[in-house]
Amino acid sequence: MPLAAQSSIVYLNDRFISKDKAFISTDDRGFYFADGVYEVIKYYKGIPFCFEDHLIRLRNSLSSVRIEFEGISMLRSLCDQLIEDNLLKSEYAGIYIQITRGAAPRIHRFPGKEVQPTLFIRAFTMPPFLSDLEHGIRVITREDIRWLRCDIKSIALLPNTMLYQQAVELDAGECFLVRDGNYTEATHSNIAAVIGGIVYTHPDSNLILPGITKKVLIRLCHDLGIRLVERPVARSETNRFEECFITGTGSEIMPVVEIDGNPVGKGKPGPITRRLQKEFFKLTYGMDLFIHNRIM
Amino acid sequence: MPLAAQSSIVYLNDRFISKDKAFISTDDRGFYFADGVYEVIKYYKGIPFCFEDHLIRLRNSLSSVRIEFEGISMLRSLCDQLIEDNLLKSEYAGIYIQITRGAAPRIHRFPGKEVQPTLFIRAFTMPPFLSDLEHGIRVITREDIRWLRCDIKSIALLPNTMLYQQAVELDAGECFLVRDGNYTEATHSNIAAVIGGIVYTHPDSNLILPGITKKVLIRLCHDLGIRLVERPVARSETNRFEECFITGTGSEIMPVVEIDGNPVGKGKPGPITRRLQKEFFKLTYGMDLFIHNRIM
Repeated sequence: MPLAAQSSIVYLNDRFISKDKAFISTDDRGFYFADGVYEVIKYYKGIPFCFEDHLIRLRNSLSSVRIEFEGISMLRSLCDQLIEDNLLKSEYAGIYIQITRGAAPRIHRFPGKEVQPTLFIRAFTMPPFLSDLEHGIRVITREDIRWLRCDIKSIALLPNTMLYQQAVELDAGECFLVRDGNYTEATHSNIAAVIGGIVYTHPDSNLILPGITKKVLIRLCHDLGIRLVERPVARSETNRFEECFITGTGSEIMPVVEIDGNPVGKGKPGPITRRLQKEFFKLTYGMDLFIHNRIM
Repeated sequence: MPLAAQSSIVYLNDRFISKDKAFISTDDRGFYFADGVYEVIKYYKGIPFCFEDHLIRLRNSLSSVRIEFEGISMLRSLCDQLIEDNLLKSEYAGIYIQITRGAAPRIHRFPGKEVQPTLFIRAFTMPPFLSDLEHGIRVITREDIRWLRCDIKSIALLPNTMLYQQAVELDAGECFLVRDGNYTEATHSNIAAVIGGIVYTHPDSNLILPGITKKVLIRLCHDLGIRLVERPVARSETNRFEECFITGTGSEIMPVVEIDGNPVGKGKPGPITRRLQKEFFKLTYGMDLFIHNRIM
């Protein structure tokens, strides 16, 4: 059945429905307490990238906030189905999965086991940011005002949106966050910097999300013989950056060419960033020549 | 028209509807980004307590997160109407107001002006916690892991619920939060401690919500000639507490008689707490003899 141009199929609480009909109760703890977690997974022409890693992280997030969700094992087939039903099997697409603690009267204490978590999944097109991948982005820096469990991929993203909006209004592509003088991560991506030919990125801790693409980056560096060290990078080291980039499901490996108005290195994507992009694109876009020609 | 036992009237996006029919879009930024703010106001038998102060704080929260909401001036009559329509004019009741940035496709940047904020208001019974007000509560202490803009009354309350749940499971009535060695506030109330006959409470800053009841407390202390100083209280001072209590719209002025298993003072509500409760109840419950007899 072809889809109406303005609608799409989503999955909400045990069934596939038209997005136009996807409504949740005002009693959902996701609506009034940000009491939920999420994942975004990219499908490259029907093939999900690192699906298992996303599931593991989702399981960790659920466990950290103590949402008891029984349906993890069915997520893969639900996501595949949504990609298919929304005619995205030949596209670069994304899947968004959100699980909240469910609908219950608003009191802080967790509801009883009779309350089922809310599961919401949707699919959408997620084309590569070609121009940014080619030319790199400018970023701004701000104090990291987020909570101290950034390792949980929670929906409590108000600080992230507030900080990202400041970047948007200054015509920048991301906002780097600084806590106690160190770069932690950006509002929805991890940060990597190249100093003396070595790639540095923040170690996994309560201060950052353990990025799936960051994990891929570590493997790529290993394979390519590029040295990578996980340690916090101080803002005071910025002027020593030879290269800089962000990693993320949407950003992939995205060069950063300017930080707070100052060029990074020569002010254009550097050679290590390019090598990593090239390897990453091989894994994901494969032989899609348009992208290869554009970036490499 | 009498209400069905299981339902009530709420206000959602320009109209009064049955709560059973109150649903929001899965595209609401309140649902997936915690991109919203709220207030809870207590109505004492039809009379709202400090309504204007709540409105001022709501306006500040909206301004801090840059949600442009035009309907502030109509809130009072909407709330009054809900109290009336839900047959709560002769009850101790609460009003919950939540405003989110509205429904828009999920991207971090703020949507354009064509997207209207979502307004949700509901009314509910809010009787005094008589036994706790009489005997006091036990509390636990935990690290304050929240973000650095706790002055904004945002719906990003996941940390608060996680921390409060720990109190619940240890049979405690609140969880005191400690940052850098100082008590900031509790998960949904402000903290006050009496040392040497002086009431201490955390000054308003980015680390705590500027409590309306805390503001009332300051006025009451002034009127009663009780010295009150706004300064951070260190956890290391706990064993010097002669009395302790929390303040909040729901908690009112609630004695704390035990912290992490250790009695506060003599392990029962102290004389300064009692005097403040008495004055507070005069302002709110007035001549409701049942409450007066119970607590005083």
